[in-house]
Amino acid sequence: MGKFLTSREENYSQWYNELVVKADLAENSAVRGSMVIKPYGYAIWEKMKEALDKMFKETGHVNAYFPLFIPKSFFSKEADHVEGFAKECAVVTHYRLRNRADGKGIEVDPDAKLEEELIVRPTSETIIWNTYKNWIQSYRDLPLLINQWANVVRWEMRTRLFLRTAEFLWQEGHTAHATKQEAIDETIQMINIYAEFAEKFMAMPVIKGVKTANERFAGALDTYTIEALMQDGKALQSGTSHFLGQNFAKAFDVKFTNKESKLDYVWATSWGVSTRLMGALIMSHSDDNGLVLPPKLAPFQVVIVPIYKNKEQYDALIEVGNRISEELKDLNVSVKFDTRDTHKPGWKFAEYELKGVPVRLAIGARDLENGTIEIARRDTLEKQTIKQEGIAQFVKDLLDDIQVNIYNKALKYREEHTYNADTYEEFKDILDNKGGFVYAHWDGTVETELKIKEETKATIRCIPVGNKLEEGKCIYSGKPSNQRVLFARSY
Amino acid sequence: MGKFLTSREENYSQWYNELVVKADLAENSAVRGSMVIKPYGYAIWEKMKEALDKMFKETGHVNAYFPLFIPKSFFSKEADHVEGFAKECAVVTHYRLRNRADGKGIEVDPDAKLEEELIVRPTSETIIWNTYKNWIQSYRDLPLLINQWANVVRWEMRTRLFLRTAEFLWQEGHTAHATKQEAIDETIQMINIYAEFAEKFMAMPVIKGVKTANERFAGALDTYTIEALMQDGKALQSGTSHFLGQNFAKAFDVKFTNKESKLDYVWATSWGVSTRLMGALIMSHSDDNGLVLPPKLAPFQVVIVPIYKNKEQYDALIEVGNRISEELKDLNVSVKFDTRDTHKPGWKFAEYELKGVPVRLAIGARDLENGTIEIARRDTLEKQTIKQEGIAQFVKDLLDDIQVNIYNKALKYREEHTYNADTYEEFKDILDNKGGFVYAHWDGTVETELKIKEETKATIRCIPVGNKLEEGKCIYSGKPSNQRVLFARSY
Repeated sequence: MGKFLTSREENYSQWYNELVVKADLAENSAVRGSMVIKPYGYAIWEKMKEALDKMFKETGHVNAYFPLFIPKSFFSKEADHVEGFAKECAVVTHYRLRNRADGKGIEVDPDAKLEEELIVRPTSETIIWNTYKNWIQSYRDLPLLINQWANVVRWEMRTRLFLRTAEFLWQEGHTAHATKQEAIDETIQMINIYAEFAEKFMAMPVIKGVKTANERFAGALDTYTIEALMQDGKALQSGTSHFLGQNFAKAFDVKFTNKESKLDYVWATSWGVSTRLMGALIMSHSDDNGLVLPPKLAPFQVVIVPIYKNKEQYDALIEVGNRISEELKDLNVSVKFDTRDTHKPGWKFAEYELKGVPVRLAIGARDLENGTIEIARRDTLEKQTIKQEGIAQFVKDLLDDIQVNIYNKALKYREEHTYNADTYEEFKDILDNKGGFVYAHWDGTVETELKIKEETKATIRCIPVGNKLEEGKCIYSGKPSNQRVLFARSY
Repeated sequence: MGKFLTSREENYSQWYNELVVKADLAENSAVRGSMVIKPYGYAIWEKMKEALDKMFKETGHVNAYFPLFIPKSFFSKEADHVEGFAKECAVVTHYRLRNRADGKGIEVDPDAKLEEELIVRPTSETIIWNTYKNWIQSYRDLPLLINQWANVVRWEMRTRLFLRTAEFLWQEGHTAHATKQEAIDETIQMINIYAEFAEKFMAMPVIKGVKTANERFAGALDTYTIEALMQDGKALQSGTSHFLGQNFAKAFDVKFTNKESKLDYVWATSWGVSTRLMGALIMSHSDDNGLVLPPKLAPFQVVIVPIYKNKEQYDALIEVGNRISEELKDLNVSVKFDTRDTHKPGWKFAEYELKGVPVRLAIGARDLENGTIEIARRDTLEKQTIKQEGIAQFVKDLLDDIQVNIYNKALKYREEHTYNADTYEEFKDILDNKGGFVYAHWDGTVETELKIKEETKATIRCIPVGNKLEEGKCIYSGKPSNQRVLFARSY
């Protein structure tokens, strides 16, 4: 098959790269830094989208669509934003090609140069706030609770499938509010939704917190984040929600008449998660045999593989397999009955293990006689033979169990890899020899934060929400600190 | 309110432009030719996507995602395709901006010029077939039945909201097959799905047919189309499905080992519908009061408006309104109960009429006493007062009736505006004075087709599927013809 993977132990990074490709999730394309999301990977992303979209709508948000292109001048309007975003971007300068004079292909038509260059959106705050200007006059027009599912482009020099690509898919929420408090509440509501999604659907435990000033989104007053721990002890930022204050309203002159009939600038938030979540999902649960998918996001939760030696057995197995498939579907369990005769059962077993299908059912000739079936769970690789009777409910319960189990396993890993460091030596030792989350005291200055990053490659992932106050001394400067913050090396 | 529309009679084109904006469907953006799809418009598009996606999946298709950017050289690989597509395109030439030396904003960094320019996809055959090359080795890898939901860009000089925009949203199916016949069957299956969607969901009757060679997709051997007739007597091409033969397989060298162990080129199809369908939907049914939406695509099917004079009445109406809302939801009817006290009932009536909500319920103080409710249907504007008891089922049946009625109305319009022309004079007279579909004999040559287009602006929309053979003479050249083809002026 040529599908066996490098082990995580041997080379974690290579294990990941191989797994993404061999499990048919994504691959590099002919365009530098852009990936192709293959059908199996895209089916997982669709499940993520569906669950998130439902949560957004249940909290009053609606979807819309804004232009892919943003006039260059828009980026200069918000001072911090331009520094953070308008640099490594794809720039459209021309709008026409022509045949080459020598007949060899086509070339850019120099006469079709745009007066103002267009930037392929790296994020849409600027074009959206330029639009909101015309939509908001009065407090009656607020709040605007809008989300967009879209592709964005950031010209990354070093790319990795799902984790960092030039083009990626995401959703970006952009809301407008009459009061500061309402915007802050929205910012927090959305990070809570992301955390709930990560834990309930992705089975991935996360730490919610606030970013330091240095790690904030360009143009935000506060950035909330959810941080997950991967199996190599590195953190992965999995979603962010920004309180933007009145920065974009001021940059794009978006004022409204409040209830007291006075003009005021509108308060803003933005929040997003991307196909990067695919990387987080893969690295949270998978093992050296391949992908391990939480049942709630698996394209199909169960696969049934028939094992037969002749036509007669095959026909009988088809009948049983179809019946069990129907029973499972009746309980809203998604199932694939793989009746292909082009591949052997052993090949199929390895294939579905690699692809992380949560439950595998196998039926052979002896099972027909005994009314039994073999059931294997992907998370623990345990197998058992049980009665066919009541199989559908048994599988449904097992799927719930798997969803809980892989969450608990990931949580246990995180707990075992979360440390307190009281000295800088201890801090460095943990990072170099154990890996994981490190809670340590920090003096609150950007200088110290940058020094630590420079010397250890660890960054402050966040100041956790509800962090307990505790007197201590900064591990780097020795200056007083009143709480530990969360450090880690990260993706 | 400032929301009243120019009438269709007075200026059809202006009526359309105003309606799209005033009904909150879409608006022009700050980027030339690009639109903003507003939440209400996007909600309709989401319903379309959902229905189509389900139909695609039920016929074995899966979704995937391919890059936004296509290397310029890819377009030159298929000779016809480059002529049709690689000209009016957005071209990315640079990947970085920098601060201007004078401190006034940002500029393109001349050092960040791409070696090969990237084209923002106008359609994805080239990048997809370049990818398929690596996915297909054997007949066991076929068929590939893949669809993509994406944004595409074609640099149009004259744009109109939904009908022709530089950037638009669409789906593009790209399938690969082992045999010619299978690819042809797929092409036809997909045009049938589009026709079914148009008629069942959009309530829009369509004519299925084949395009002439001159009107074919660039690179196709056959293009199937569905053509709808708008209320101004012009045709709108609403979806196309292309049999691509082995053209793209040859251009990108995609060969496979067939069952006889011989190498052969793969057979291809592609098919797509876009946000242009929004334009078709709007123009098919709407009237001088605003949008008329088919219940199957309405963001909400029913609106309930309470009419009250005091707090006591308001409270009592809220209770009844909530109860009826729940009853409707139990029957899977989507409902909005508009309890806002910032707007008067009359304003709300006009607003929902403009937005095409299929059914409006109004309850006032007298209805409370009598146990009645006023029900108004948007398609006919008829009103009646009925008992509250059993209202939910009544509304559900009415929605079915409206769905059928607006289809029949559109069909009747089309039938009344479909003509046979036997002479060129008659042909021109119909186009100039009546408008609509015209069946006429044509000699089968591209010269005649182009002459007729030049002189009358009418094009051959299609040669209808199952067209009846009939001896006749070409209306233009007088040469013999064995069937009538479908002409119209079009969008």
